[in-house]
Amino acid sequence: MNAEFKQQRTMIRYEGGQLEEKQDLVVSEQPITVKVNGEEFVTLVCTPEYVEDMTIGFLASEGVIQQYSDINELWVQEDEGFVHVRTDRWKPQHRQLFTKRYITSCCGTSRQGFVFFNDARTAKRMDEVRVQLTFQQCFALMDGVQQQSELFKQTGGVHTAALCDPNGVVLARSDIGRHNALDKIYGWCLKNDITPQGKIIAFSGRISSEILTKVSKIGCEVILSKSAPTELALDLADHLGITTVGFIRGESCNVYTHPQRLKEYADKQESTVLF
Amino acid sequence: MNAEFKQQRTMIRYEGGQLEEKQDLVVSEQPITVKVNGEEFVTLVCTPEYVEDMTIGFLASEGVIQQYSDINELWVQEDEGFVHVRTDRWKPQHRQLFTKRYITSCCGTSRQGFVFFNDARTAKRMDEVRVQLTFQQCFALMDGVQQQSELFKQTGGVHTAALCDPNGVVLARSDIGRHNALDKIYGWCLKNDITPQGKIIAFSGRISSEILTKVSKIGCEVILSKSAPTELALDLADHLGITTVGFIRGESCNVYTHPQRLKEYADKQESTVLF
Repeated sequence: MNAEFKQQRTMIRYEGGQLEEKQDLVVSEQPITVKVNGEEFVTLVCTPEYVEDMTIGFLASEGVIQQYSDINELWVQEDEGFVHVRTDRWKPQHRQLFTKRYITSCCGTSRQGFVFFNDARTAKRMDEVRVQLTFQQCFALMDGVQQQSELFKQTGGVHTAALCDPNGVVLARSDIGRHNALDKIYGWCLKNDITPQGKIIAFSGRISSEILTKVSKIGCEVILSKSAPTELALDLADHLGITTVGFIRGESCNVYTHPQRLKEYADKQESTVLF
Repeated sequence: MNAEFKQQRTMIRYEGGQLEEKQDLVVSEQPITVKVNGEEFVTLVCTPEYVEDMTIGFLASEGVIQQYSDINELWVQEDEGFVHVRTDRWKPQHRQLFTKRYITSCCGTSRQGFVFFNDARTAKRMDEVRVQLTFQQCFALMDGVQQQSELFKQTGGVHTAALCDPNGVVLARSDIGRHNALDKIYGWCLKNDITPQGKIIAFSGRISSEILTKVSKIGCEVILSKSAPTELALDLADHLGITTVGFIRGESCNVYTHPQRLKEYADKQESTVLF
């Protein structure tokens, strides 16, 4: 989909006490309705690029598909804002469970912190340490995300997520919807058979439970952000084995969960044990 | 609901090349499931304060109720995260239409920019000019929002919305979910019989179509933000008669739609006609 994702608009600028008519670039926002086997599944309000990847990522994230080959057919009706998917794996309960609260048998709020039923089905636990990075690498990756976020610089209206390895950004996606950026990355990984294990997500916005859940569904072990995490996201990260690094600003940051993937921390722990 | 909405957590701080264990305040995030007449309607992930107002605002925003008196009974199960509502106005289609795309008969994307069916039912057009404000008042109100956002200062994790008149902030609400802050304001207005007509919303985040739609549902004529609007939000604002002022930073800003509510602009137009 090669839709233009920013538009020029005329506006009135007020600056230094003066009024002036000016042109401004404004970010696009478009509703995309995903129909699975002819049935309306979801409407995602998004930046209309990489819509196919976003759809694949979203369907995997909700557990409708498990791999790219589960999709028999996918076609995008660009102007009308529809994506049509055919798959043999569709079950009516996918739609019913989509906004359904996940409630454990013991108490109202799930101890693991899952909010929605489909999250508990598709989130992955990261018990192993398959990637380690230094604090300098954290700072460099966060810088990389900021640089990739060209759309943000021009319009101030989107969030950017990047799939990274310790040495650099592999793929960056920007979207008006925080979670769409991550679905676009997930879909790209599935379509191109890229293993997310051992990789890192760097994100321009705050780490909410929704973002943390998406990171776990993609299968990444580390999330980096210049912003703050929420308590529910940290409970989930604790449970799922994900390393969360927040408030990355300049040469400082906070590690909230599973610091063993930060090299300096792991080295220090090791030396404490040894001496 | 007097739940604590921030929690202390232990984290590893990296600064000046040093690692240190420190305490940090992290914002709470809790799923609240609204059950109407015993049926699960929606799960809102929110900052768990003013949950009753948020529920009232959300139900009005989705067209389930039209006024506060439509609610026969409402009780909050705080620890379990449930709000139970009884109303004679509940119809099963409210739930069905909740995530349903609004599609006009002529084309796929609605010309008015509505995304969801319930939005088209409950959004209000603001044809009259019942409030005017100066640019200095815009700057002062935006400052006011920043000052009210104490939670944000401490945790960096929430958005703040404020109901204002030209002379100051009437009510400010912060939430981890952008739209929840507006639902909390809407519910407060309905419960206390406050007329939003002639009032202004100032918002700490970007103006998406969702935010613009909420502003129109509440019945306010002006939205102020320090951030950017999206194109779809501006299309909606054009159509609904709402004044959008974005990028309010220091003493400058951009007026994107319906500038007649800015006093300096209106005066200039008048003098242009006269001379």
